[in-house]
Amino acid sequence: MFQSGIAFLDWLGIVAFAVTGALAASRNEMDLVGFVLLGTVTGIGGGTLRDLLLDIHPILWIEHPAYLAVCVGVSIGIFFVAHLIDSRYRLILWLDAVGLALFAAVGAERAISSHAPFIVAVTMGVITACFGGIIRDVLGQQRSIIFSREIYVTAALAAAAIFVVMAALGAPREVALVAGFAAGFGLRAGALVRGWSLPRYRARPAQLPSHTSRTNERSEYIEAALTDGFRRGPLPWEAAFLPGKFAEWTVAPSEPSIGASALAILSCERI
Amino acid sequence: MFQSGIAFLDWLGIVAFAVTGALAASRNEMDLVGFVLLGTVTGIGGGTLRDLLLDIHPILWIEHPAYLAVCVGVSIGIFFVAHLIDSRYRLILWLDAVGLALFAAVGAERAISSHAPFIVAVTMGVITACFGGIIRDVLGQQRSIIFSREIYVTAALAAAAIFVVMAALGAPREVALVAGFAAGFGLRAGALVRGWSLPRYRARPAQLPSHTSRTNERSEYIEAALTDGFRRGPLPWEAAFLPGKFAEWTVAPSEPSIGASALAILSCERI
Amino acid sequence: MFQSGIAFLDWLGIVAFAVTGALAASRNEMDLVGFVLLGTVTGIGGGTLRDLLLDIHPILWIEHPAYLAVCVGVSIGIFFVAHLIDSRYRLILWLDAVGLALFAAVGAERAISSHAPFIVAVTMGVITACFGGIIRDVLGQQRSIIFSREIYVTAALAAAAIFVVMAALGAPREVALVAGFAAGFGLRAGALVRGWSLPRYRARPAQLPSHTSRTNERSEYIEAALTDGFRRGPLPWEAAFLPGKFAEWTVAPSEPSIGASALAILSCERI
Repeated sequence: MFQSGIAFLDWLGIVAFAVTGALAASRNEMDLVGFVLLGTVTGIGGGTLRDLLLDIHPILWIEHPAYLAVCVGVSIGIFFVAHLIDSRYRLILWLDAVGLALFAAVGAERAISSHAPFIVAVTMGVITACFGGIIRDVLGQQRSIIFSREIYVTAALAAAAIFVVMAALGAPREVALVAGFAAGFGLRAGALVRGWSLPRYRARPAQLPSHTSRTNERSEYIEAALTDGFRRGPLPWEAAFLPGKFAEWTVAPSEPSIGASALAILSCERI
Repeated sequence: MFQSGIAFLDWLGIVAFAVTGALAASRNEMDLVGFVLLGTVTGIGGGTLRDLLLDIHPILWIEHPAYLAVCVGVSIGIFFVAHLIDSRYRLILWLDAVGLALFAAVGAERAISSHAPFIVAVTMGVITACFGGIIRDVLGQQRSIIFSREIYVTAALAAAAIFVVMAALGAPREVALVAGFAAGFGLRAGALVRGWSLPRYRARPAQLPSHTSRTNERSEYIEAALTDGFRRGPLPWEAAFLPGKFAEWTVAPSEPSIGASALAILSCERI
Repeated sequence: MFQSGIAFLDWLGIVAFAVTGALAASRNEMDLVGFVLLGTVTGIGGGTLRDLLLDIHPILWIEHPAYLAVCVGVSIGIFFVAHLIDSRYRLILWLDAVGLALFAAVGAERAISSHAPFIVAVTMGVITACFGGIIRDVLGQQRSIIFSREIYVTAALAAAAIFVVMAALGAPREVALVAGFAAGFGLRAGALVRGWSLPRYRARPAQLPSHTSRTNERSEYIEAALTDGFRRGPLPWEAAFLPGKFAEWTVAPSEPSIGASALAILSCERI
């Protein structure tokens, strides 16, 4: 009974992640096989890494190939319906949130079942939860979700930690799993809806150059944009009105969709 | 006899992939040790992952270090002759095709030898075939070959599936291997020569903004370029003739050579 | 006694790498959990891969969770003091150098202890030393340190090879370890201080186009910049003075900080 409950959650998490992988493939306009590749890797990537690290063989999907079949089926389905989905990116984020919380709790459970120490169990929960998405983003060349400004890895950590603590305190596993899932999903949902975040490390502000010649100013601003601007937002507004030539000057940090590229467009015109 | 045949194909595939890795190093202008690193990882990466997943130990190149030595030797050789090769990128693609079809069939064979279910065997063929190249592209920071517009993963899938089906139907393994290789290489060759491809997922066309002020139009076009344009080709031509200031406006999506960067150059000038 | 010496070096290497991972997180302005993630992955990534490949289970940090705890503690510490460090990038490089030389020697030692052949032991040294940093750069979306213009992988190779050769010749392991570390760190230090490097593969110079119309010239230069310019430095200076329209034309290859993005800014103006 309990095992089948765990298995159900595993299925749910795998489906959720497979959908996010397939949607990432749709953002890259891949073909059907590309959808299957990215969907499958995302669905089973985290659990595979966990099983490898814990030396659990055969690995989940080698023992139960139905997991593979589900990932393939889900990915094919998404290939045909993705255009119906209005905002794929939002959907990726929400399904990712479900998978994240599920896998964190289930991953920690599996580690404890194989007698790993508590800190290792928490780590395995985080690995199971996060590495499917990390592999998806690396292969799909998206900006990695671990850079998400809002709480992400933290939610996985909370889910895994709460499960482990409750299990250690003797709570029934079902209760611990539900509590872990609820905590992780709640945190991530708060992050998505309300923008919850932990304080981020802040670098000291860039020191703006003060120079002599106009040409210098310009090229140094360009350089500053290249080295500093992209992580600190647009160039200071006064850069747009350097005396002389440039009436307008916009620096737009890119939407990080294709690869991790920071992309600047510097458009200039004469007054 | 059969074993030595398999071993020979393994060698051939490893050499082909090692060459592609070393050529990728040459495109990055790395030093000799960089060539060896990238060549070796590409040559043995896919097989290593397969052996890890199937829990086959010692893995290939630990049991037979000669595989390592061959990768090292091939990479060193390429360091000295790469400049003689006229079109490295084409050569990478063709050798990659040979390795792809070989590894897909051989990888599936090894999985069946270790009693994996059929769907797992096909998966292992695809993993063996594709992950050397995937690791090469991730480490070499090239646009991943899985995004290839032409058939790629599909060829590996075909090679592995045909091998597995024929082996399941009782065909001699030699025959099944040759058939699998022929199918995979044939498909990929057709992709390289004739541009064969599967239909790709197509997003809905970008909706072009229709706004009021010129400045808005311009910045919104920039934004559209950043979010949509790069995966849908250049901006619509009419953008080049916005009323007023901009006589010419080209957006060139980048050659994806260094990293996965989308690179836009927006050059503007007054009429 | 010897074992505890090895363990101490392992600790030192893990701390050094964990610090580099956490500093990379600070460059990405991540939150506390992001620091822990990146610091931990960097600290134990190389050793984890080595243990997986050699089939040593339980892997290091599952057997001794204290390694995990140290990575977590170090990463948290860096979160609070990183702003005190004047040049994080330099510090990353130097700590990375310490970890590199340590892990190369220790990794080779562990492989020999599990009876791997010599070439495999050297490979394991290089893997242990380099893959923590490689994973850090892939996850942190920095330009991979394996592209470092100065000696890097070579230093790991030297450390591992010298250890293996000395051990094979019957030198006491302590001596071999110290010699390997000294060689690797010395080489890398020379690279950092004096710019030591191996000769790099050099592509033939880009052939500059010679065309007819002005517009063509311009777009072809842009294309040349996209395909060739970024790996060969700025465009030729004469491009800045194409007859006619363009008085100034600068191409600035990017600082590779965010992702592997090559970033060009092409600013043009009329004379």
